[in-house]
Order: sequence, then C-alpha cells, then structure tokens
Amino acid sequence: MAPFLSKRDLHFQLFEVLDSAALTERSRFADHSREVYEDVLNLAYNVADRYFASHAREADLNEPHVVDGKVQLLPAVKEAMRAFREAGFFSAHHDEELGGLQLPWVMTQAVQAHFQAANVGSSGYPFLTIGNANLQRVFASPQQQEKYMLPLVEGRWFGTMALSEPHAGSGLADITTTATPKDDGTYSISGSKMWISGGEHELSENIVHLVLARIKGGPAGVKGISLFLVPRYRVSDDGTPGETNHVVLAGLNHKMGYRGTTNTLLNFGEGGESVGELVGEAGQGLRQMFHMMNEARIGVGMGAVMLGYAGYLASLEYARERAQGRAASNKDPLSPAIPIIGHADVKRLLLRQKSFVEGGLALGLYASSLVDDLQTGPEDSRADTSLLLDLLTPIVKSWPSKYSQEALSDAIQVMGGAGYTRDYPVEMYYRDNRLNPIHEGTEGIQGNDLLGRKLTQAGGRGLQVLMSHVEGELQASEGLGGLDEIRSTLKSALEQNQTALKAILGRAVDLGPDLFLANANSALEMLGHTVVGWMWLRQAAAAARALPDAKGEDASFYQGKLQAARFFAIYELPKIEFHAQLLARADATTHEMQPEWF
Amino acid sequence: MAPFLSKRDLHFQLFEVLDSAALTERSRFADHSREVYEDVLNLAYNVADRYFASHAREADLNEPHVVDGKVQLLPAVKEAMRAFREAGFFSAHHDEELGGLQLPWVMTQAVQAHFQAANVGSSGYPFLTIGNANLQRVFASPQQQEKYMLPLVEGRWFGTMALSEPHAGSGLADITTTATPKDDGTYSISGSKMWISGGEHELSENIVHLVLARIKGGPAGVKGISLFLVPRYRVSDDGTPGETNHVVLAGLNHKMGYRGTTNTLLNFGEGGESVGELVGEAGQGLRQMFHMMNEARIGVGMGAVMLGYAGYLASLEYARERAQGRAASNKDPLSPAIPIIGHADVKRLLLRQKSFVEGGLALGLYASSLVDDLQTGPEDSRADTSLLLDLLTPIVKSWPSKYSQEALSDAIQVMGGAGYTRDYPVEMYYRDNRLNPIHEGTEGIQGNDLLGRKLTQAGGRGLQVLMSHVEGELQASEGLGGLDEIRSTLKSALEQNQTALKAILGRAVDLGPDLFLANANSALEMLGHTVVGWMWLRQAAAAARALPDAKGEDASFYQGKLQAARFFAIYELPKIEFHAQLLARADATTHEMQPEWF
Repeated sequence: MAPFLSKRDLHFQLFEVLDSAALTERSRFADHSREVYEDVLNLAYNVADRYFASHAREADLNEPHVVDGKVQLLPAVKEAMRAFREAGFFSAHHDEELGGLQLPWVMTQAVQAHFQAANVGSSGYPFLTIGNANLQRVFASPQQQEKYMLPLVEGRWFGTMALSEPHAGSGLADITTTATPKDDGTYSISGSKMWISGGEHELSENIVHLVLARIKGGPAGVKGISLFLVPRYRVSDDGTPGETNHVVLAGLNHKMGYRGTTNTLLNFGEGGESVGELVGEAGQGLRQMFHMMNEARIGVGMGAVMLGYAGYLASLEYARERAQGRAASNKDPLSPAIPIIGHADVKRLLLRQKSFVEGGLALGLYASSLVDDLQTGPEDSRADTSLLLDLLTPIVKSWPSKYSQEALSDAIQVMGGAGYTRDYPVEMYYRDNRLNPIHEGTEGIQGNDLLGRKLTQAGGRGLQVLMSHVEGELQASEGLGGLDEIRSTLKSALEQNQTALKAILGRAVDLGPDLFLANANSALEMLGHTVVGWMWLRQAAAAARALPDAKGEDASFYQGKLQAARFFAIYELPKIEFHAQLLARADATTHEMQPEWF
Repeated sequence: MAPFLSKRDLHFQLFEVLDSAALTERSRFADHSREVYEDVLNLAYNVADRYFASHAREADLNEPHVVDGKVQLLPAVKEAMRAFREAGFFSAHHDEELGGLQLPWVMTQAVQAHFQAANVGSSGYPFLTIGNANLQRVFASPQQQEKYMLPLVEGRWFGTMALSEPHAGSGLADITTTATPKDDGTYSISGSKMWISGGEHELSENIVHLVLARIKGGPAGVKGISLFLVPRYRVSDDGTPGETNHVVLAGLNHKMGYRGTTNTLLNFGEGGESVGELVGEAGQGLRQMFHMMNEARIGVGMGAVMLGYAGYLASLEYARERAQGRAASNKDPLSPAIPIIGHADVKRLLLRQKSFVEGGLALGLYASSLVDDLQTGPEDSRADTSLLLDLLTPIVKSWPSKYSQEALSDAIQVMGGAGYTRDYPVEMYYRDNRLNPIHEGTEGIQGNDLLGRKLTQAGGRGLQVLMSHVEGELQASEGLGGLDEIRSTLKSALEQNQTALKAILGRAVDLGPDLFLANANSALEMLGHTVVGWMWLRQAAAAARALPDAKGEDASFYQGKLQAARFFAIYELPKIEFHAQLLARADATTHEMQPEWF
C-alpha cells in the first residue's frame, strides 16, 4: 500500500519553502524548535497511519446507518477519536493554559493534513469540533466557553455547524429556524437543519451545535440572523450532559463519498424544547459564522489537496510496478514490457497530478502561514496580510477542490481498470473529493466572492499586495538556474491578470452587477492558476538553490520539483489566457441565455 | 424524475441535421420510412423506460455477487433482456433473412442510445452480444454462424470479448493464453482472461466467448495471436447447450460504477478442457478483434454521450425547480428566491453540459451514419469515407468519454449537495461514465492511435477528407443569420489544426517515435474539439434555417441550439490554441521527466 503522504515534500514545503522554523523566533512559539515540529509531524503520521488509514475503506463500505434511533459507526472510529485526543491534537493550537501546545496555525494544518489524507471521513469529526471551539474562543462569553468550549478542546464533546436548511443551502439569508426568547435569557430553537455533518453519533458525551436562527420579532433579512449554542444534551450545573435537548435526527444523507462523516437532517425543538444560548450579540450570526467558515474554507482546500495527494502517491506506486507495453521506438515485441511510468503519456498524467497536489499543498500551507502572521507576525503588515488572506481564501478553497479532482481522475487513468475498482483507494478518493467543490460555499459562490467582493474591497489593496509579493519572488529568483520558462510564463500571467482585471473592474458599474459577475468563474480560474504558478516559482527557487549541493535521492527530489514547476508553467499557466480574454470583454453568452431555450 | 433522453433533440439530430430519412432511398432500406424510424425510436424509449430505467439504481445498489458459484443479478435484468429481445433489438440491423429489420446502423445506434441512457449496466449484455454476432457475421464460417451466431441474433445466447489478461490489459500483444490443436480441428484453450464483461451470469442459455489466444508452436508477437469461439457450455449436434466447457469464474471485479455489468476474471481450461473453434485464419486474431473494437469504440462514445445527456437533463430539471438566491442586481432580500436556472453561473454549467452532450450526440450519430455510407452509400466515396471514419474513431471514443465526465461533474455542481447523494441519479452516472475513458482502449491509446496511425495513413488522406467536409460546411452556412462567431472561431481552429499538424508530422522522423508521440493527447484534444465545433456548426446551421418559420417551443429549441453553438465556439474552441502550440513545438517536458524524479 502506498503511503498517504510524502514526508519529504511536507518537510520541504514547511522548512525549505516557508521557513516555518523561523516562527520559533516569535514569543508565542519561543519554546518550540524545528525538532519539536518534526516530532509533532511524526506523531501525526503514526496516529493517522495506525488509527485512521486503517479503517478508511471499511468506513466507506459501511456508511453510517440508524439502528433503534442511534447512528451506527464502526468501532474503529471511536478508537481513532481516542487516539487523536490522546495525541493532544484537539487542543494543539490552543494556549498552554487551555492544555494546548500553542502550535502555529501552519503546523496544526500540517498535522490535520495527515488525517485528511489517511481518512477524510473520520477526520471530519475532530475538524468540525476544532472549528466550533475556535469560533467560541472568539465570540462566546467566558461562561459559555467554560461550559461549551472546554469539553471540545479536551475532545470529550464534539461540535457541528448547523447552517443550511432544506430550502436554504447556498442562500443562508433565507433561513427560517426561529429562536424564541425565554425568561431566563436562553432561547427556544425550532426548525430543520440540513447537511449537518457530525450531527448525530455516539462518539462523544455530547454534541454542541452552532445554530443559525432568527430571533422572533427581529428584523428580516441577514440582520435578523443570530448564532446559538445548542447542545444535544442539556448541560447540568456541574457541566455534565443531562436530559435530551430535543434535537431529533430526521434522516441521514446518503453520499457518493466522504461516507465516514455522518451527514444529517436535524429537527430542533421536535417533541420538546431545544434550548439554546445566544453567542455574542443578536444579528451577528452570519458574520460570526463566516469567521469560522473562512477557517473551514482553508480546511476544505487542504482536505482536497490531501485527497489528491494520496491518490497521486497511489498511482505513482502503481506506475512504477505495473509493466505494460514498450517505448514506441522499441520495435522488438519480444523485449520485456516496461513499467508504465516510462511512457510519456503516463508521465504527463503523473506530472499533472504532481503539479496540482504539490502546488495545492504549497498554497494551503502558505495561506495557513498568513493566519499565523495575522496573529503573531509584525504588527505593521497585518492589515495587508488580512486583505491578502481574504483575497486568497476563495482560491484556497476552490482551486484544490477542482484540481485535486482532475488529479484523482488522472490517478484512476494511470491505473486503468485497476484504478476503477475497490482493490485500490483512488476510486474512493475520487468519490470523496467530489464533495469539496460543493460544501462550505460552492465554486460559484467562491467566484462571486472573489470578483464581487475580495478584488474590490479596500480599493483593490488585496490584489496590489498579492502582485507585489509575486513580483518580489520574480526578482528574488532572477539568475537562478533552470527557471527561465517558469519565470517568463508567470510574468506573462501576471500581466494578463492585470489587464483583464483592470478591464472588468473598470466596467463594473456600466455592466451592472449581473453581467459583471457572469464570468466570475473565469476570474477564479485565472487568478487561481496564477497564484499556484507563483507557489511553483517559490518551490522551484528553493529547489534551484538546494540542487547544487544535493546528492542521490535529494537531487532527484529537487529535479522533480523543477520539472513539475516547468510542467505547470508550460502545460497549465497558458490556459489563463482564455479566461483573461473572456473576462476582459465581459462575454455575455451565459448572461443572455434564456431558461426556456434549454 | 427527469426523462433520460430528449426525443426532440434526437429527432433534430437524425432528421434535421443528418437527414436520415433520405436513407430510405437506398435499396436496402427501401421498405422503411421516417414514420417507421420514429416508431422504432418510440418503441425503444418505451422499452428502455419501462424495463431498463426502472431498475438502474437498484442494480447500482446491488452489484453482482456470487452465491454457490453462480453470479446473482436482479430478476429485473432478465426481464429487461426478455423485453429487449421481444422488441427485436438483438437483430434490428441484421438482414431480413436472419429475422432482422435491416435498420441502418445510425438507427440501431439511436435505438441503443435509449438503453445506454436508461441503464448503462444492463445495456452491456445485449451490446456485447450484438458486437460478438457482428464479428462472427464478418469472419466466422457459415457453420460457425449457424452454431454460434444465430442464437445471439435471436437473443437466446449472449456473447463476450475475452481479450485482456491479468498481466496484459492495454498491451494485448503480450497475451499468453494458449490454444492447443486437437485432432478434430478444434483447439484446447488454456489461460486466464481479465476484465471480461458479461463473462458469467444466468441470463441466457449459453455464453459465447470470443477469445484471443496463441496457437502452440505458432510465431511470437502479434502474428501468433488468433481468435477462437469458446462457449460456456459445449454445443450439441442439435444446437443445444450441453455439458460444461470448463470456463471457470475466478472472481468478480468490484467497480466504482457501471455495476450492473458483471465484470469477471475467467479461467479457461480449469478442471477440464475448454474447447474452442478457430475463427477465420490463424494469426488474424488482433485484426479481427479490432474490426469489432472499432464498432465497440463508437458504442463506448455513444454510451458516454448518453450518460452525460441523462445527467444534463436531470440537472436541468432540478435547476428549473430549485429556488435559491436572487439576481446580483436585486437588492431586496425579502423578494422571493428565484429558480437557480436564472443565475449566470448555473446557466454556464448547463450550457457547458448542453454543448458537450449535444455535440457528442451529433458526433456519435454522424460517425454511425458513416458506417452506413461505407455499406450502402455511393461506391465511389467509400474509400474516403473509410479513412474519415478511421480518423474519427479515436475521437468518437474518447471525446465524449472525457467531456461527458466534465458534463456530469457540472450536473452534480448544479445540484449541489443534492447531486452528491443517491436521491438523484447524477452521482451514479458520474461513477458509471468514469469507466469510459478506460475501457476499449484508454485515452492514451486513442491519442497514439490518432497521431501515430490515423493522421498518417494513406498519406494523410483522412485529414484531407475531414478538412474538406468542414470547409464545405463553412461555405454552405455562409450568410445564415447568427452564425458569425461560430463560423469564424471554427475557421480559426481549422487553421490552427493545419499549422500544428503540419509542424509535428513534418518533424516525425527527426523527433523519433517517442518524442513525436509525447503530446499525442494534445492532438486528440485539438482535433476533438475542432470536430465537435464542426458538429455544432452543422446543428447551428440547421437551427438557423428552421428558426424563421418556428414558433413557441420549437423557436426556443432552435434558439437554444444557436446559443449552445455560440457557447462552444466562445468558451471551448479557443482552448485548442494551447494544444496546437504544444504539439507544434513538440514540447519535451514529459518526455524528459525521469521516473526517479517523481
């Protein structure tokens, strides 16, 4: 069985491209060292390998089902949760006073990457729990944190995000779940929530739902939406879970993949009262949720990267071992068949995967490092960092979701019929990852967010920051060997971005909002590929610097980085020209299409 | 539930674009009329709807399994086979003397399209049977035809193609199954065959395997490969199936999709002798199989089209019914949510699907009509038609396989979380169709076939024929309203093809076979998109001619055709520029990549 993650590449990304070891110079991380980080990563690999990878296929084949009103999961899932908790990963990024390790965000993302690669379904439970706790850390009262957050940080209770409703998926502004104020300051929550991952299970002592609802009598529209903490079991004064809070499982969704993560329809306030506590101020629900959702979006992107990466490694191992056919130049049919990794078209499929998943990993870790910079980096650059991270978030979420799916299709293709069967994991990854362009904001929503909001906010400052970073990297890499095509293609891409964005943004008012946004997807494609091209230049530059002194496997590793960077520059980056032109001229073909013409 | 096929579009393609009714002027089809064809298509729709669509999901959820050595399928599958047989579809294209209807090939493909759309898994059994019989019709002796072919034509026995072996999938030249001559002129067949669809089941009285094997003592390499008829049960003198022929089921493959079609590992000559009869001359096995495989490749392409088409129709219905969000220009959050078909990005996803599946359907039917022209068309153009069909076959096989998968991904995306669940059929189609770029020759093999063989054979005459057809259509459509962008983009594509192909073909010798073929995939992409662009011009021209007199739904239908043609011209055809340039300069990035650098 192929490894689910490349330790070599993860170390390269963290310590040779990002220089994460330098984080230890910041006071919050002063007790850490590169060795500490490497130990944590090794622990993550071992726990993920032993407790998560080991039941990934079994969980896929035995999707959650209900017996006597209880959701049935494999016993191995509970075992995995225990191992994850005992390794300290529920609280790794938290303050020491909360029992945490104060790990930088980029390191926690690198830790999580192991679990996403090993078993994305089971990893869903801790990640939702961690996200829920992080939101409480920012917005909940100290009393609420003690009551609802600490058990999550300790991994004893689990958490969810309960946003969507049957009639309101992408359109959260239309939710109708109500919160009726009670005399004691709590609220009675009533309504149905759809697509709730981890909504019901027996893995933890309690489940804390973060629920969007409308306070009765409040304003219509998004201003009337507030956020509530609603536990599965009401919490007694001593902090233990008590009687039911009447959050009723109304059904499970049966998904193509990602099957290990139970996905539920929940009815709040069915057969009794669902009591909830308001988080922060009334009317702030969407804003608070989006704080959590931006984290979640980086997490989705990283999850997509890791599924693609695991598929790449599986198909790579297969390609090295499977002999089939001969070089076209070999006319001797009696010579032995060669490993398929020797065929140019198989190398194309492998290079394509490599360029997508290693480019995606670089992007996900870079974005995570920006979260650290926001919290612990130099104060004077935080405003710019914040705008840059805002700009990158829709790309970090959607680009790997889309291109890991392409990579996984390529992984299946490399393996042929074998890849299409359950004898290998790639068909499962392919089914799993297809969720990623959908949840936490569809690709369409990310495109609108990028073009309609992130590219225009603060007078376009986010884009300026991005461009200056890319230009800085272009300058810094000047003169390094083997980077000519990589640098010239990226330069050209940069110019095309600037021209196209200037054109479309300049016409936004004239076009009106609908036509302005009609080709938002092309903005996402164009800028996404450009950003990943930049990530490849960063990797290529690091490889070019290290190559002269490298030997053996290390030298091959750096050669591979350079060739993958070239591949992305030559086989992928030129594709943005099409999107740049479409965007610049505000093509109206889709806008003008009439529903009745279909 | 959405319809699985658009009758309106199928009629448009057959009678307004292809003018299939004119086939009745040929003597073989003199007894037919457009009404006859329409009746046959209606019968196909009704049988497919009632007996095939009705158990598609059930078959997906209950994949074939073995109990007491027998493969278990749903009872509904046998019922479907009976209905298919009673409708006369096993023999529809055969001569009247064989009980057939003498339907043109294009009509039989249109008939089959219904079953591929309704239930691709169950449709596999008759289609393999029909293909097997067609090969026998060409290469088997009269005695063999009576013994092994007639029961297939009558739908009483079923057939398979037994080519691949565990160590030889794409590399058929390396098969090792042996055929030992016996005194009575028959052969004893021994070896393992992998990926055999329909290899074992209880649907029919007997199964006739067409088996590639090497006659002992024969030459090495492909010249030593011959083709054999090997029945599951030996055939008595009175033509009835008798004792076992020792073809033993060694295992079932568990696939991501296409689950209704049993896929097997078979051992020939296990526990006793598997007796086979040589088809035609020794050493002709691969040539004979390829005769069948070219048919099969068009069939795979059509199957892919129909899966994509069914997904498009399902997502279209959903998009008309699901209300979510508002136009960006609508600032009133209290106004009702609109059907998502009103959002530009959803229209983009639907137009993209429409352009792929209707373009693919036009291509599949056009290629099928060339099969008719080869058999019953004007004698003096048959040589050119043959070269054109040879050139198009790798495209007809691989283009819809790839782009229907893109379309199905878009169908899921339109439907969001719903599309990712088993509540709707699109996730199933997505899993089903992922097989199509793999079986009957992978995409890589199709690329090599196109660039390495079809573009060079007969001095490149096939390409000349293609280009003159496209240019003819460009001339014929001059002056028609609304076609400007469609025509100009296709013209430009044509020029890019000519430039790129001239460049790469002119350097074939200098480059050597390996580098020459390194970007064969780009040849497939470039020419594939161009051919489909031509198919869209044909449809757009037919629509432009009909639109002035059309009213109501008909007018909307033609408007939709024109807009989808524009969409393909604007959003898809420009993408070939990248492939043309890569191909023209014989980019060596993949060729130079070393296995150890991965």
